Amino acid sequence: MAHIRAVDIITKKRDAGQLSREEIAFLIDGYVAGEVPDYQISSWLMAVFFRGMSFEETACLTDVMLHSGSVIDLRAADGAAGPFVDKHSTGGVGDKLSLPLAPMAAACGVRVPMMSGRALGHTGGTLDKLESMAGYNVFLSPDEFRACIARTGFAMTGQTKEIVPADRLLYALRDVTGTVESIPLITASILSKKVAEGADALVFDVKAGSGAFMKTVDDAEKLAVSLVETAKQMGKKAAALITNMNVPLGRKIGNFLEIEETIECLQGNWPDDVREITLALGARMLVLGGKARSVDEGIALCQEAASSGRALALFLQNVRDQGADTDAVLAECGKRRSPHRAELRAAADGFVKIDALKTGLAGVALGVGRNKTQDAVCADAGLIIHAHEGSAVRKGELVMEVFGKDDACLAPALALLNDAVVYAADKAVRQPLIYKEIT
Amino acid sequence: MAHIRAVDIITKKRDAGQLSREEIAFLIDGYVAGEVPDYQISSWLMAVFFRGMSFEETACLTDVMLHSGSVIDLRAADGAAGPFVDKHSTGGVGDKLSLPLAPMAAACGVRVPMMSGRALGHTGGTLDKLESMAGYNVFLSPDEFRACIARTGFAMTGQTKEIVPADRLLYALRDVTGTVESIPLITASILSKKVAEGADALVFDVKAGSGAFMKTVDDAEKLAVSLVETAKQMGKKAAALITNMNVPLGRKIGNFLEIEETIECLQGNWPDDVREITLALGARMLVLGGKARSVDEGIALCQEAASSGRALALFLQNVRDQGADTDAVLAECGKRRSPHRAELRAAADGFVKIDALKTGLAGVALGVGRNKTQDAVCADAGLIIHAHEGSAVRKGELVMEVFGKDDACLAPALALLNDAVVYAADKAVRQPLIYKEIT
Repeated sequence: MAHIRAVDIITKKRDAGQLSREEIAFLIDGYVAGEVPDYQISSWLMAVFFRGMSFEETACLTDVMLHSGSVIDLRAADGAAGPFVDKHSTGGVGDKLSLPLAPMAAACGVRVPMMSGRALGHTGGTLDKLESMAGYNVFLSPDEFRACIARTGFAMTGQTKEIVPADRLLYALRDVTGTVESIPLITASILSKKVAEGADALVFDVKAGSGAFMKTVDDAEKLAVSLVETAKQMGKKAAALITNMNVPLGRKIGNFLEIEETIECLQGNWPDDVREITLALGARMLVLGGKARSVDEGIALCQEAASSGRALALFLQNVRDQGADTDAVLAECGKRRSPHRAELRAAADGFVKIDALKTGLAGVALGVGRNKTQDAVCADAGLIIHAHEGSAVRKGELVMEVFGKDDACLAPALALLNDAVVYAADKAVRQPLIYKEIT
Repeated sequence: MAHIRAVDIITKKRDAGQLSREEIAFLIDGYVAGEVPDYQISSWLMAVFFRGMSFEETACLTDVMLHSGSVIDLRAADGAAGPFVDKHSTGGVGDKLSLPLAPMAAACGVRVPMMSGRALGHTGGTLDKLESMAGYNVFLSPDEFRACIARTGFAMTGQTKEIVPADRLLYALRDVTGTVESIPLITASILSKKVAEGADALVFDVKAGSGAFMKTVDDAEKLAVSLVETAKQMGKKAAALITNMNVPLGRKIGNFLEIEETIECLQGNWPDDVREITLALGARMLVLGGKARSVDEGIALCQEAASSGRALALFLQNVRDQGADTDAVLAECGKRRSPHRAELRAAADGFVKIDALKTGLAGVALGVGRNKTQDAVCADAGLIIHAHEGSAVRKGELVMEVFGKDDACLAPALALLNDAVVYAADKAVRQPLIYKEIT
């Protein structure tokens, strides 16, 4: 190790060389320890942006990052047995799929150790949605996390500071050095956290479209392949679906509004798009976890878990276990709305087309999301889509109900939504919800 | 300016965008002022490495760097008039061409404001050679610099701290972040200093070959074109020659040894290679400075300046003006040698081939050069080539005399030289000394 120099590793990557685990560890461990300065890491990150990394290198980077902090041993819980299977979404608008999915998969026998994130930009965050239920605790200790999983088969928590500190350091540096949009760096960031939380198998929902990080199916496929192949290199089972994020998911977008829609789903009242993708993801979780022999069998099992009410029961049990009052939550459903309300009415006759990105930005304006990680969100803000993608409306008909954090935000949000919704003369061919599967 | 963010400029370059002068100034001025952190500059440097810069962008970068410090106004000297024409070499082994060239061009009526550098790695440094003359001052103040030029038409000095501080900061960062080998960054580094010293016209000697920074003629041509085009963008006249640096230049390599060879040249005893390239460079200086109408006329004028003794007289006058004792220098010629001497004798019969890089590395071992900028050099170390490139030798004949800083360095230096010199069965086709001219 004595003769390794950071500049030689940077130059090797710059010149399209393959880095060894030792070289990657020298940079990352050195950075976390304060021995390799940030200006060397940032030029290396830019070299990685241009040259990429092999799956083997990406797995080494992931593993080195992973071991920069604590790794949760889920099997340390009393009687906790796997399979531990998690789902990760690259983020979208109205993407509440984790919420019905985790109890559904848990009801079918897999254990779901879910560590989620917060809203940022136009994409929503599971933790913000969960916290809209008063008392719900997303800061579980490892012991509490394991205990919750042992009771209901799943738990939902945030990432603690002890988990992958290298990722926080690297992400903060990437954010200010133009090196966010790199497939291997995104892969290592996602995977290091997912592996640290203790999952044996991972299902990725890689979203493609205007409201997604990856705007095209091609780019989403590159990320999906990288996630799956790198996870396999690390000895994990993995699969990915590439799904459509040109249109917001479901009918409700917001924090408590998405809890409400989750409960509706688990009561059997699913929007078609949420149902199709949630079942598809759940089926893959069961197959990877050894609880279904085929995707078809997995879908049937998930459907049964939902229609029988077992998934809803587990969801409510988890809400209780993590500190919220389920009676209060159920009572609020359909009623809890911000008083700052407005309506979006159709500007013309036509078939509705809704853009996910613009809708997400309207959500930020309303207070659903945030532009900076320090900003607060409003639990009761959001929007309800009454005329969904593809439906025919007449001029003046109600398209969306809008709820803001205050009155002042309503006009700008409506302006964004007026731009987000188009009234087409012809009904568009329906785009697929699931583009592709990567295994 | 309030809305410019460094990360956006980095990302623009990363995505192959053209940066404006304002954007480049935001980064560089901000870096020098401590407002833009080094980790952003280094990722930008790496993006520039991959994406390059247009000549217009490179000229903006040069101009911004140039104005990070003092700019010398040569015309402030009493009666000093142009044309101010300088030569810059990208560095080589045995490259003492500046030393005979400056007085020769000055004798023909151009003014040569020469700011030179020091030896580093296998390449020699003009300042170290000049300092081998006891008392010679390479730390002239701007006033002294102007006064010397006014008296003899040229002066030779080092770069002061006030000249282009941005280049020192950027070069130190490039050195540790794998971003040295970038044509636009090299161009801006060279040109910012040359323009800051006040030259109106610039002739570049871009060396290609084993002993040069650019190993191939193609790479050297890219740098030459960048230097010439960028200089023109900045309103300077410019031309470049791409010259051969596969073989050391001249017969003497060292610090005082190259002063000695310079005096021999100006006394009419030129090694062919030194003569050909020095005249070619001098002719271009006269053409750009308006003192010759053609390269041929320029060569004739330079030859006359040398053969008449006027160039030698100016050289000796400068040596006196800058503080050394010319009588002592002249008396030392042919005699001043380190006592730590060894001989390289031919290992076989054959035609001699000498590699510039390996010879330069042997020079470093002997004490001619240095590996780190802080190391001292030995004024009396060096080597004399008795059997030059292409000459036929018999096994055991003297090929080189070698003078070291001490006895211990002789064996390793001889080992390097044994590897540097090859005895070929057939006489090789003579390679051109000047590959190409870029105007």
